[in-house]
Amino acid sequence: MPEFLTLLSPRIALGKLLDSFIPRIAFEKVHTTEALNRVTTEPLVAPHSLPTFPRATVDGFAVRSKDTHGASATLPAYLELVSEIPMGVDSAITLQKGQCALIHTGGMIPKGADAAIMVEHTQQAKAKEIEILRAVAIGENVCQVGEDTHKGEEIIPAGKLLRPAEIGALMALGITDVRVSCCPKIGIISSGDEVIPPDQKPKPGQVRDINSYTLRSLVLRTGGEPFLYGIIPDDYESLSQTAAKALSECELVILTAGSSASERDLTSQVINNLGRPGVLVHGINLRPGKPTILGVCDGKPVLGLPGNPVSALVVAELFLKPLIAALLGRQDYSPWAATSARLTINLASQSGREDWIPVRIIESENELLAEPIFGKSNLIFTLVQADGLICIAPDANGIAAGEEVKVFFM
Amino acid sequence: MPEFLTLLSPRIALGKLLDSFIPRIAFEKVHTTEALNRVTTEPLVAPHSLPTFPRATVDGFAVRSKDTHGASATLPAYLELVSEIPMGVDSAITLQKGQCALIHTGGMIPKGADAAIMVEHTQQAKAKEIEILRAVAIGENVCQVGEDTHKGEEIIPAGKLLRPAEIGALMALGITDVRVSCCPKIGIISSGDEVIPPDQKPKPGQVRDINSYTLRSLVLRTGGEPFLYGIIPDDYESLSQTAAKALSECELVILTAGSSASERDLTSQVINNLGRPGVLVHGINLRPGKPTILGVCDGKPVLGLPGNPVSALVVAELFLKPLIAALLGRQDYSPWAATSARLTINLASQSGREDWIPVRIIESENELLAEPIFGKSNLIFTLVQADGLICIAPDANGIAAGEEVKVFFM
Repeated sequence: MPEFLTLLSPRIALGKLLDSFIPRIAFEKVHTTEALNRVTTEPLVAPHSLPTFPRATVDGFAVRSKDTHGASATLPAYLELVSEIPMGVDSAITLQKGQCALIHTGGMIPKGADAAIMVEHTQQAKAKEIEILRAVAIGENVCQVGEDTHKGEEIIPAGKLLRPAEIGALMALGITDVRVSCCPKIGIISSGDEVIPPDQKPKPGQVRDINSYTLRSLVLRTGGEPFLYGIIPDDYESLSQTAAKALSECELVILTAGSSASERDLTSQVINNLGRPGVLVHGINLRPGKPTILGVCDGKPVLGLPGNPVSALVVAELFLKPLIAALLGRQDYSPWAATSARLTINLASQSGREDWIPVRIIESENELLAEPIFGKSNLIFTLVQADGLICIAPDANGIAAGEEVKVFFM
Repeated sequence: MPEFLTLLSPRIALGKLLDSFIPRIAFEKVHTTEALNRVTTEPLVAPHSLPTFPRATVDGFAVRSKDTHGASATLPAYLELVSEIPMGVDSAITLQKGQCALIHTGGMIPKGADAAIMVEHTQQAKAKEIEILRAVAIGENVCQVGEDTHKGEEIIPAGKLLRPAEIGALMALGITDVRVSCCPKIGIISSGDEVIPPDQKPKPGQVRDINSYTLRSLVLRTGGEPFLYGIIPDDYESLSQTAAKALSECELVILTAGSSASERDLTSQVINNLGRPGVLVHGINLRPGKPTILGVCDGKPVLGLPGNPVSALVVAELFLKPLIAALLGRQDYSPWAATSARLTINLASQSGREDWIPVRIIESENELLAEPIFGKSNLIFTLVQADGLICIAPDANGIAAGEEVKVFFM
């Protein structure tokens, strides 16, 4: 039986991991101006309605709609102009039958008035008289009290990422501080006897550490707080000690082992002894990234990523991002930042396995094209050239040139 | 003649603005770990090839490919096992005819060897003898020197956003600091006699400042450095003085005026007298956002945004984001973070005008659905409910339910 038939699909493997721990989400109160890209931990409720007063949505005249009934260009209504509504203060007047008041966009509709008429549909007849050239209905060109939101309404649910629109909405209601989840601490442990820090010159047989830095960057981009635990020698004692320290200090621990079978076994052994239950998934029906290990130790997720930098980054896109979203308490997370593009060439794939392929996006006349980037899966520059990843499903033997594919951005 | 026939389309208006100034891009040197989401200002060249030595891409044995020719499961070749290649040090041996060496993924191919054979295609015959069950070609299972990148090759062009992959690639080459553009300073001026700071309680007729905070958030998200100049009264002197101060201190100035005709005229007058040439575009064939003003004053772009918060944020998505990308020196900017979804209902639109409509994305069984969110264009909560925006082209009268639309994320 081919190995891939016994391996879990990425989606099922991720689901299994997410079902095996309950994120412990700490929260803090921050000023709303500092809350951009943070995640709410409680539903937020409108302390008052918005707008707080009826507002004109056009430049023109506040009117009593009844007074305009039947008005037309050939048979205008004539209204007495009694005042101009100043911006930013209570429109103290009360409009009487046959009266109107000059009003600007955003101005407060005065008492007695129930609509506004655009200046384009009026004409100045005399100094204090306005010709009304069409009828307006009750409420026309008026934004009513509570039309944006009502007092007591849930305006933002728990678990929502705060974007510019949410920040503005909170400010509109005077909510100047907000409870958000703390950034989860993500521990990153690199290992491999051949791996050296980037500021050292590699001797023959040595390579610089890439994974600590690609993963750190991905964690920062996704809202986590990365902690680098350095490059640990490939022995059980050193790796176990560092992993235990990271597990006690962080909400998620990543071990990027070397790519050899013996190093993978070592990682698996370390995770199994780090806490219960240990390794949940060892090997995923995915390329690149098959040797990925998913575990939970004492209630915290632990990832064993392949040592090769392309596999590590692709697996991080697929597993680390949703895990950080879960640790942030996000309820709104979905990998929607994807676009459609047309594949430029035929892509073959081994049926039964999920393949992820880096692509470059090319803007053609009327559409976007996705051009696969080839290279051994350990070449970091294949990802430097890539705009995103496309997926070949396990039940396909490939994708034909010209087919529409979904590109997930990196 | 309807007004929209005389107004520029958003794309042409933006092009006109981008063609009317030359971004002055300052740069600084930062540590590569701090360079995430920054933009390069010069092409980066590989100081050496990568990998620096030939590496095995499998677990198995380093061999001379010639020695395996003709080998098969029924007629294996037999090679003498002379050593194990340790990780991270020079494989000091030279393989002689008839010899092989145990090697791990990422290990250094020793002198004399030109290929590696997977352990799965071998069998241990005796303590020091390996059965080779298939032939390998020259270079098989080997990542050659320079296969990732060559010494002297341009690895990252000028004007590129540094993502996790680029950070990793720089570290792989020992490039631990990098020249990036400085974050452009973006001055934000709010005006309107009815506008008050968010921490104050509005009296009748007053509204809290939303635009300063949505725009500040958008600037932060796009890589700019926002500076808030406060809420300025609606008079020419105050507004001109603040705008002049902002123009001298920032690379781009945004004025968010009120929405009334008189306030728009005031903004236009301020921009015209702020520096040459002043207003370039007044009014764009776009909804929401028609009253937008685009200008250049003494070589710096100046935007006059509508006061209504939804218009201001939509216009900022369409104009401010590409402007900040230009001020960062980005050559790789493109609004690709868009996905396709199926529209849930018929949408009508006025032909001749470009309409942008907020939508909510709904995950259905096999596809994404885009559900329009309706509301007057001054309701900030229409954007809070939205995942993105869709566009109705000016030559369309609308989009039918069931059609595929492109959703631009906010």
